Amino acid sequence: MRKISIFGATGSIGQNTIDLINRNPEAYDIVALTGGANIERLAQDARRLNAGIAVTAHEDKLDDLRAALDGSGVEVAAGATALIEAAARKSDWVMSAIVGAAGLPPGLEALKQGATLALANKETLVCAGSLVMQTAQNHNARLLPVDSEHSAVFQALVGEDMATVERIVITASGGAFRDWPIADLAGATVEQASSHPNWNMGQRITIDSASMFNKALEVIETKEFFGVSPDQIEVVVHPESIVHALVGFDDGAVMAHMGAPDMRHAIGYALHWPDRRHLPVDRLNLAKLGQLRFIEPDETRYPALSLARQVMERGGLAGAVFNAAKERALDHFIARHIGFLAMADMVAAVLDRFDAENGLIDAPMTLDNIQQTDHLARKWVDEAVTQRAG
Amino acid sequence: MRKISIFGATGSIGQNTIDLINRNPEAYDIVALTGGANIERLAQDARRLNAGIAVTAHEDKLDDLRAALDGSGVEVAAGATALIEAAARKSDWVMSAIVGAAGLPPGLEALKQGATLALANKETLVCAGSLVMQTAQNHNARLLPVDSEHSAVFQALVGEDMATVERIVITASGGAFRDWPIADLAGATVEQASSHPNWNMGQRITIDSASMFNKALEVIETKEFFGVSPDQIEVVVHPESIVHALVGFDDGAVMAHMGAPDMRHAIGYALHWPDRRHLPVDRLNLAKLGQLRFIEPDETRYPALSLARQVMERGGLAGAVFNAAKERALDHFIARHIGFLAMADMVAAVLDRFDAENGLIDAPMTLDNIQQTDHLARKWVDEAVTQRAG
Repeated sequence: MRKISIFGATGSIGQNTIDLINRNPEAYDIVALTGGANIERLAQDARRLNAGIAVTAHEDKLDDLRAALDGSGVEVAAGATALIEAAARKSDWVMSAIVGAAGLPPGLEALKQGATLALANKETLVCAGSLVMQTAQNHNARLLPVDSEHSAVFQALVGEDMATVERIVITASGGAFRDWPIADLAGATVEQASSHPNWNMGQRITIDSASMFNKALEVIETKEFFGVSPDQIEVVVHPESIVHALVGFDDGAVMAHMGAPDMRHAIGYALHWPDRRHLPVDRLNLAKLGQLRFIEPDETRYPALSLARQVMERGGLAGAVFNAAKERALDHFIARHIGFLAMADMVAAVLDRFDAENGLIDAPMTLDNIQQTDHLARKWVDEAVTQRAG
Repeated sequence: MRKISIFGATGSIGQNTIDLINRNPEAYDIVALTGGANIERLAQDARRLNAGIAVTAHEDKLDDLRAALDGSGVEVAAGATALIEAAARKSDWVMSAIVGAAGLPPGLEALKQGATLALANKETLVCAGSLVMQTAQNHNARLLPVDSEHSAVFQALVGEDMATVERIVITASGGAFRDWPIADLAGATVEQASSHPNWNMGQRITIDSASMFNKALEVIETKEFFGVSPDQIEVVVHPESIVHALVGFDDGAVMAHMGAPDMRHAIGYALHWPDRRHLPVDRLNLAKLGQLRFIEPDETRYPALSLARQVMERGGLAGAVFNAAKERALDHFIARHIGFLAMADMVAAVLDRFDAENGLIDAPMTLDNIQQTDHLARKWVDEAVTQRAG
């Protein structure tokens, strides 16, 4: 039996992972399941899968979790340290699906144990690319992508030589506001930004799709994961979300991965890698779809994309700044403190402020420095929001 | 230096192969070049590439060829036997680009020498699939596809396990008459059928695109080359000819090969395999293309597709019958003896007649039997044409 842990088990990725595991439960020994505030779901899954331990990120939910798992034989724990301790338990395969920078420490810990880390948490590579890749290498651990775009690239590279890769093209649906007049974006509401045309995902990532901050993170992640240079990475808007990514080789051939928009493609690929196994996803019918459209992304509409290029060129801790500032700006947008377009303004301003403060971005990439940078970037976003309001 | 021979050097595929070789001529030692009636081009290329031997398929052109290569040091020969003798000369890599069933004997001979056979001649596999695959296996020779569709499938399979292949989808431009009212097809002229919307190819294959006999051959070739069952092969009309083929795996993932319509993609891939090397082809710009369309092929418009299914189900020498009848019907269409739609009628009638004659299709697949079948099928098409005229 394969020993498996799922970090972020109650979210969209975690639940889809559990869906696949539930189809063949005798193949897996569940070491740890972790979640956030949805104690009922976490407890239910931990009980059904007979997990070794269930961990909630929220310390104040420990009693609820303990009560919900009473008599089940499942260990319980809570808090950031408990997450890392759970990651230190020996697993063959670990799903890293905690949303946001909080996913980084348990991910790093799992790599230190030599686990195969299925990476749905894009912040891990955005904030700590070289640290993560180095940790994986030092501990002979493997990273597998779970974002559909990166899984698509990974699949297009099967059997190919990275030295022959000319470019990587990741697709973007264009999000909720793809067809809005740009002048209307400033007034876009949280509700409007929270509805994705193709993918059924959580609210934060759906808003990040509308702003393309999500794609910006993916561009940076592409650079870190595949070790290509920023100018080898392209983004194309593809409203149907059928082609997830394309890899162009130096002979002009372009290999593309297609499939219905269903996260179980990428999750299943990572779960069964290096094999492919039957997955319960819809089969592609191109004639039924009729057409696939591709549009050059407008960087006026999506300033996050130019910010991503700036971050990649800058290197160092710029990714950690970018991600933290983006997360905090998103908090403020959801809390209705700032408008939709102000998110990119805030992130740009905080990146500039970091750049102006000598040495901050070029500090060594350690977990401590990343966390301090993260903290400071959030604080500076808060300051910028207060300033704007005042 | 790699020893290379090019059969069908003066045609579209042959000339594109020479174009690639000319970019790096010191890497190749040209053993043999063969052509048809275009003696001037054959001689010019043989001289420039310093070929060991130049062979024309037409015995009556031998003197012309000899005169054209006088003093060059290039050996000359002519006729079907000379083609086979040229194929028997040791080459590492042989391009099989003779059009029609005439390409089969030299292709088989090259395989017997253990050469890697780059197969642009689709009739080789259509007429003699199991014989060819067996010959390759017996002599430890390798077949590489050069049709853009089969090269695309081959590339999508790099590093993958055939056992996980669920289906293969090859695309078809739909040819010159894709958007014609079906009622008008009967009156389509040779000139109208000879103009291809996307690919610049010879007249015969362009007409075969309009009728989809070309796609029908490719469907059969797909079955033989990749060893899949007929119901795993799909055809989709894709007017832009950018996606050349797609492979669907049992996890629902679909890997597609895309590129500008340029035969040098597939030729270059076969020439450099297993490496990819820089090719002078246009790079794909999806946003500039804007859209890729996909349409279910209408088997009323394209009866050749149902005939291909019938041939695959029938097995044995049905492929040889199909191909010969198709070639002869095409001769009659080009000679304006029959109309455009009559080609499929003739092929269907001859297939039926073979089926009615006990044992003909189930005779052992030897080169002799294939050639006799080919001869008889052509004769029966002639009879059917005479009958129709009378």
